[in-house]
Amino acid sequence: MQLDILRSPSAFLRHLIGSTEYDSVLQESEAWWKQEGQAISDAVDRARTPWIRMFDSAGKRVDEILYPPDYWRMLQQGYHAGVLWRAFQDRSLLPSFLLIYLTSFYDSGLSCPYTVSLSTALPLAKYGDKALKERFLPQLLRQDGTNWQGATWMTEIKGGSDLGSNVETVAVPDGNTWRLTGDKYFSSNAGAELAVVAARPKGAPGGVRGLALFLLPRRRQSGELNYTIRRLKDKIATRSVPTGEVELRDSEAYLLGTPDEGIYLILEVLNVSRIANSIGSVALAQRAIADALNFAECRIAFGRRIIEHPLLRRQFDERINDLRNALALAWGAGKLLNEVWEESRPYSERYHLFRLMAHLAKYWTAEFAVQTAKWCMEVHGGLGVLEEFRVERWLREAMILAIWEGTAHRQLLDALEVIERKRAHQALFEYVGRPAQLKETVDAIDAHLQLSAEQRERDWEPLGASLAQLTAGVLSEKLGR
Amino acid sequence: MQLDILRSPSAFLRHLIGSTEYDSVLQESEAWWKQEGQAISDAVDRARTPWIRMFDSAGKRVDEILYPPDYWRMLQQGYHAGVLWRAFQDRSLLPSFLLIYLTSFYDSGLSCPYTVSLSTALPLAKYGDKALKERFLPQLLRQDGTNWQGATWMTEIKGGSDLGSNVETVAVPDGNTWRLTGDKYFSSNAGAELAVVAARPKGAPGGVRGLALFLLPRRRQSGELNYTIRRLKDKIATRSVPTGEVELRDSEAYLLGTPDEGIYLILEVLNVSRIANSIGSVALAQRAIADALNFAECRIAFGRRIIEHPLLRRQFDERINDLRNALALAWGAGKLLNEVWEESRPYSERYHLFRLMAHLAKYWTAEFAVQTAKWCMEVHGGLGVLEEFRVERWLREAMILAIWEGTAHRQLLDALEVIERKRAHQALFEYVGRPAQLKETVDAIDAHLQLSAEQRERDWEPLGASLAQLTAGVLSEKLGR
Amino acid sequence: MQLDILRSPSAFLRHLIGSTEYDSVLQESEAWWKQEGQAISDAVDRARTPWIRMFDSAGKRVDEILYPPDYWRMLQQGYHAGVLWRAFQDRSLLPSFLLIYLTSFYDSGLSCPYTVSLSTALPLAKYGDKALKERFLPQLLRQDGTNWQGATWMTEIKGGSDLGSNVETVAVPDGNTWRLTGDKYFSSNAGAELAVVAARPKGAPGGVRGLALFLLPRRRQSGELNYTIRRLKDKIATRSVPTGEVELRDSEAYLLGTPDEGIYLILEVLNVSRIANSIGSVALAQRAIADALNFAECRIAFGRRIIEHPLLRRQFDERINDLRNALALAWGAGKLLNEVWEESRPYSERYHLFRLMAHLAKYWTAEFAVQTAKWCMEVHGGLGVLEEFRVERWLREAMILAIWEGTAHRQLLDALEVIERKRAHQALFEYVGRPAQLKETVDAIDAHLQLSAEQRERDWEPLGASLAQLTAGVLSEKLGR
Amino acid sequence: MQLDILRSPSAFLRHLIGSTEYDSVLQESEAWWKQEGQAISDAVDRARTPWIRMFDSAGKRVDEILYPPDYWRMLQQGYHAGVLWRAFQDRSLLPSFLLIYLTSFYDSGLSCPYTVSLSTALPLAKYGDKALKERFLPQLLRQDGTNWQGATWMTEIKGGSDLGSNVETVAVPDGNTWRLTGDKYFSSNAGAELAVVAARPKGAPGGVRGLALFLLPRRRQSGELNYTIRRLKDKIATRSVPTGEVELRDSEAYLLGTPDEGIYLILEVLNVSRIANSIGSVALAQRAIADALNFAECRIAFGRRIIEHPLLRRQFDERINDLRNALALAWGAGKLLNEVWEESRPYSERYHLFRLMAHLAKYWTAEFAVQTAKWCMEVHGGLGVLEEFRVERWLREAMILAIWEGTAHRQLLDALEVIERKRAHQALFEYVGRPAQLKETVDAIDAHLQLSAEQRERDWEPLGASLAQLTAGVLSEKLGR
Repeated sequence: MQLDILRSPSAFLRHLIGSTEYDSVLQESEAWWKQEGQAISDAVDRARTPWIRMFDSAGKRVDEILYPPDYWRMLQQGYHAGVLWRAFQDRSLLPSFLLIYLTSFYDSGLSCPYTVSLSTALPLAKYGDKALKERFLPQLLRQDGTNWQGATWMTEIKGGSDLGSNVETVAVPDGNTWRLTGDKYFSSNAGAELAVVAARPKGAPGGVRGLALFLLPRRRQSGELNYTIRRLKDKIATRSVPTGEVELRDSEAYLLGTPDEGIYLILEVLNVSRIANSIGSVALAQRAIADALNFAECRIAFGRRIIEHPLLRRQFDERINDLRNALALAWGAGKLLNEVWEESRPYSERYHLFRLMAHLAKYWTAEFAVQTAKWCMEVHGGLGVLEEFRVERWLREAMILAIWEGTAHRQLLDALEVIERKRAHQALFEYVGRPAQLKETVDAIDAHLQLSAEQRERDWEPLGASLAQLTAGVLSEKLGR
Repeated sequence: MQLDILRSPSAFLRHLIGSTEYDSVLQESEAWWKQEGQAISDAVDRARTPWIRMFDSAGKRVDEILYPPDYWRMLQQGYHAGVLWRAFQDRSLLPSFLLIYLTSFYDSGLSCPYTVSLSTALPLAKYGDKALKERFLPQLLRQDGTNWQGATWMTEIKGGSDLGSNVETVAVPDGNTWRLTGDKYFSSNAGAELAVVAARPKGAPGGVRGLALFLLPRRRQSGELNYTIRRLKDKIATRSVPTGEVELRDSEAYLLGTPDEGIYLILEVLNVSRIANSIGSVALAQRAIADALNFAECRIAFGRRIIEHPLLRRQFDERINDLRNALALAWGAGKLLNEVWEESRPYSERYHLFRLMAHLAKYWTAEFAVQTAKWCMEVHGGLGVLEEFRVERWLREAMILAIWEGTAHRQLLDALEVIERKRAHQALFEYVGRPAQLKETVDAIDAHLQLSAEQRERDWEPLGASLAQLTAGVLSEKLGR
Repeated sequence: MQLDILRSPSAFLRHLIGSTEYDSVLQESEAWWKQEGQAISDAVDRARTPWIRMFDSAGKRVDEILYPPDYWRMLQQGYHAGVLWRAFQDRSLLPSFLLIYLTSFYDSGLSCPYTVSLSTALPLAKYGDKALKERFLPQLLRQDGTNWQGATWMTEIKGGSDLGSNVETVAVPDGNTWRLTGDKYFSSNAGAELAVVAARPKGAPGGVRGLALFLLPRRRQSGELNYTIRRLKDKIATRSVPTGEVELRDSEAYLLGTPDEGIYLILEVLNVSRIANSIGSVALAQRAIADALNFAECRIAFGRRIIEHPLLRRQFDERINDLRNALALAWGAGKLLNEVWEESRPYSERYHLFRLMAHLAKYWTAEFAVQTAKWCMEVHGGLGVLEEFRVERWLREAMILAIWEGTAHRQLLDALEVIERKRAHQALFEYVGRPAQLKETVDAIDAHLQLSAEQRERDWEPLGASLAQLTAGVLSEKLGR
Repeated sequence: MQLDILRSPSAFLRHLIGSTEYDSVLQESEAWWKQEGQAISDAVDRARTPWIRMFDSAGKRVDEILYPPDYWRMLQQGYHAGVLWRAFQDRSLLPSFLLIYLTSFYDSGLSCPYTVSLSTALPLAKYGDKALKERFLPQLLRQDGTNWQGATWMTEIKGGSDLGSNVETVAVPDGNTWRLTGDKYFSSNAGAELAVVAARPKGAPGGVRGLALFLLPRRRQSGELNYTIRRLKDKIATRSVPTGEVELRDSEAYLLGTPDEGIYLILEVLNVSRIANSIGSVALAQRAIADALNFAECRIAFGRRIIEHPLLRRQFDERINDLRNALALAWGAGKLLNEVWEESRPYSERYHLFRLMAHLAKYWTAEFAVQTAKWCMEVHGGLGVLEEFRVERWLREAMILAIWEGTAHRQLLDALEVIERKRAHQALFEYVGRPAQLKETVDAIDAHLQLSAEQRERDWEPLGASLAQLTAGVLSEKLGR
């Protein structure tokens, strides 16, 4: 592989996964990013958290998010290119994933609005009744960049891992609709015209079994705001996505699916996010490597460009190899999702295999993104810690990727659970063709499953890490072929 | 070890290295930090880069750095406690290192002014002539917190690793003094009353051999500013130290040592910084673990405090073990420096052993600090990426520790060099008592030295990492005893 | 008067109103400000709006305002000096006003917490029942700087002028207490331990007659937060006072006075604020003149210091004369308040005279502060608009003084009302000794009162301005004697 | 006049000065501002001082100003519309002034780059030799928005009023070119491709007679940077123009005119700036009135919209009348400049009449802008001081207009000087048709001229103010006809 390929997300994708019908879409987007988008993204990050105008001067609550106009152009570029509508037109998530990769190379945070919009459209299309779909789906799927946006709001103040205990938002039926009351603490894409929201119908049991999923528009039927944004959160990065605390107060909402299967719908939503997060993580890592490369090719020390220093050159080679593996893992998980995303309960074996892959990919790629962003800063030396050069941005972005949609700790345990319940490691072993280099780990997992629950959890990390790493390597070899 | 010890830097130090005559000094400082210092440090970090007032309203250049008054109180606390004067009173660097550990637990950046002040006083005391010492040393060594500060300015715009090529500041003799002209790009503690500065005497040879070290006061004999600060740099962290770009224009300076031995003096200065950086890195890691612990003891998920979750608990145990090892390595290097810091050329074998240890410690502890700060964010989940909770600060601080005074790449190669030239790995092996667990690595290094220069450099990283890690473990066992 | 007096608020006060028993208190405070306070105030202004930590890391709502520790020291200095407790100990508001003058010379915003704390303690002492007073008053009146703070929250989102229409907060009785629900939009000193709050008891009539005044503690009896802060507002100045939007939700509160006299209590609260605002405005104008003087004495143009330029010198002389008049007016109004502050309904004639004076003083002094701050910037030329020099701060502060507690428009109309209803202009004429220079204006007002209501309002401004200006001049002459 | 006209700068211009051939250009620009520009301008102001990237990552000085891309679009809009090239194509400054009015209604600061570019092109065209003009003028006059920008750098650290004493930049001849060395302290439009710069040729006499004017490109013939930007200044407003401190170090420059007439060229440059400043001030005042109107039409108090409150309505009527007068004065001065801008020494009487008008206009319109912006904030009440609503921005912008190009103090004295030397008040009296309402003032000025120099300066302000105000009124009547 020529190093030059590292500087282009579309070229790297094509190099690894081959040509697709979306090549020209990707190339056009990439051209836009180079010419316009990059500078916009830099400016949005420099401007830090956007302002929110809560009231207009007449005293009416408006919750207007004050981004520079450029931001909206940047956002619309991806919608227009098809990150949302193509999934429905082509009945495939792959164009979305490809565009998310491309976007994330330039602005990791911007992939979030795309992903949560997709994660809103999918359950609406799958579980919404006819009237609901007719009313809302076309707004999301406009092809001219004027589409509505979606959002997925689950987490409340007590934490996002244990939704069964921590979702305190209550839903009360009100004729054909429901009324939701509660506070959502990490509400990405606050301000979206539609959101899918986890809530507990009044009287439903505690725990995850009592959760339901609702569609919640930004405006009530009356035109009034249907939710308010208490504040936008000052995050260290992903400033291209407004993350807020959202207050629901008798907010109008529509049930998706049935009240007792909400947790499955929620998990389906998270599936999409985890894959998007994995793909975005790899793209971010590619970007960090590309920036390190640009620097190493022009910085001179001890009489030669530092890219020619043997130790650094070796680090580059290893990173690039790991990058290929990471993409293979994320893309492999994405392709599996593309096979199963239309499934409903009862799920197939393939679905459980996918879940395992999704956890491994989310875990492994985010970790790789963080370590690569850190290394990129180190390659830049002192310049790496100056805000002026923005190299430090990739680490900030990567840390959010590592935490959003569940930390490494959570992914590892969820992967263990699907192995325990569905023996998904065996399915994975089969799926990748029973390669020799995985055998030892798969056997070790079998042995591990004999331990007590406490021990299984405590000692799982090295095995889980091995499984992720080796799977990535195996998939990469297949890609290479 | 009880987990509670992790919350106290003085208790952790005492636990590992035993009681010293400085226990009460450390405890008093710690009490001050808890009661006042922490909130000041938070506020300084929130306020981002301080302002610089370049001109007063009469148009006179003043270069006044506008910190809140609290900052100066915070800064003086450590000087008053003895981070600088005790080294000279007790002829030992250990009290400085202990206070740097304590400071770094609360404000990693603040250790920088202390360290560079020490690194200014030491060569002045060692290499300055009598008049110079009488004039300047007492200002640095005041015991009431009103002491002058020092600074160490080497790096220029083309980079800090290869000083031999990149120092373009020129020194011209002018009677008993010299005149320096050039730009220093990373000038920590800009505004200091005294600085030691690398420059090349006019006519001196190129490369490191032509460098000399100078003492440069903030004000000329006439009272005018002797250097100007072009700007303060917007760094991601260490906001407790003003880092600026400094302009020297015929600035009055005094030669330290002789013109042809400057590089040795520079390296002696860096020795102190590397040890301080190592010690500060361990303290920062302790802080991150303590914060993670505080959170994990109160956050509840799935019905129990997350500290009780087996996987997380195991991660804590491993981190704590690594923390002990890291402190053992940093402290071991610090004790060695305390044996050799008064040496001049020709240096003893002990000095070369110290150099190896210093490189290993700088490399290993900074890496540990970064990884631990990252993990601490992950333990906090979503809260970890919100500026409001300041957990993300530790990663920002740690990244600077990893880059300042030379990145991992640089430390590894410098360690290799002292091994190649002085066989310092053997000296280390002897020094730690020829432990079985080091044998294999030491032998591998011997074999490695047979490779070509290119190969030696390219393949050195795993061996260097092993040497650092194992040495840390061995030293930790000794401490434990 | 020597120009030097302008540089000292205590000297200027003493020069104009003579020596008081508080001279040494003022001088001590002034010494503190010079040595420590000024730099703190600068830093607080530089730091812009303070952060608010809404939730602790355990997810509990805490609404902690993150000022630097220095801020709290600065705040406590005035409480300790007696801005609050002396009013009660000496049964005189004059020491409060003197300390507010002194404070405002250095930090105009800081007078707000002092004023609203006073405005909380006064109605509590006057209208609270015995139990309420015993429970809360001692907390406010501690003399060691650890006292609780008060706050006065009237305004809601629809505006502060027309409280009768715009207060939508509802109070519902609940045993001995009340429960308040509503949103206060401009809540100065958000975070205060006690607040007095305007609300409408459920079922009370509309308009101002239906308003009541309540005492509302920060914490419920249970220890929980009794109100939450939706956000701190980004104001252009007065960053020494956290102004927030406060949410009351079934918040525990205690009725002050009876439910049907609330508007009178509210107006009594505003009386204190208007006087404090007037006094603070004069102090700010003095500060702006002092800064202009400092600059004009050192800036040289066309061969001489600009203070010696005839036109500028004349501007100084006029400003200083106006400053004396403004202080005479504000202090005159303050002394009147000191005569009537213990009155309850039915009020004396003196009280109505005071009301007129208060409106004139609030209007005139704020206008003078704004114009003087603007002029001070112009004296500084280009430096005046640079943030670095902080001269622009006085204009920002002054604009808030001009708007808080009612704009010029509001003061003029309220002055007209008390003239219409109580012929207070005649009482004023008598009070100041029927001076010839006021005669024409007083007669013109009599004629003006014959106009239609519409005309009276429309054409009132020039007359109102004359009355204020001339009264100030007359009072100044008396002071001078 | 209908109030609606106040909301449109092009409509207000047309209403007052009648239709011009530029109507459609103005309307197109206005449409762009409404649709896109306003939000960009808001975002640029919110983002505060732009960043400057001094060095690229290879260590090369680049001085890149990091605005969001939207900024450049906003900037180019006006160039494209013809704020620069139309002056040369139509040999008239009027289209420039019209576009500056329109721009200033939306973004007061943005008029600065336009004005200084014009002020660069004009002396180049007038005083540059053929080669210089051929080389540089076409770059400035491109019509597609890709034109180079100009800048006018006179002021140094000691102040801008007294250039004769304070310009310390030295020019040394070097073949056909000159080399300039010095620091410019207020360098608007830092980063411009061309600047006109005041400097003193080595050996030239002191005082204003020794100054010369030079053309200075951003890049040397070699392509290297020809000047460096020490920093961008944190101003309170006009964030659409990067104002920096510029360092000239042997910078290549080209003499304009002859060395001994520089001061006349400098004053010609200032003439253009003063007119642009006057026109921009009126536009800003119109904007503030329009915003106040929008608010007053929707805010309700005491049962009616506040625009219907008699006192406020009267204030509106007076402001609008003053606005007409202010425009008449500024436009009148602009038209005079349009008559004389091509003159060189010896100047005509008309030129001196123009100078008087320019000083009166600069003084009077800026004062009006400040007072109107202040009043607009007061109309908004509490909302006026919140950053969220941006109303406070107009006061910040206005204060810069009041100070740039000379404060009121400076304009008054310069007006007096041209009256003293050229009896320009009489020329003005003639020019406006010897109206009765000016007679008294003109006579009083004649009497005033008999006073001592000291007295003339000291007591001039009321007369100067009268002259400005009455002239504005007279001109307004003429316009109205």
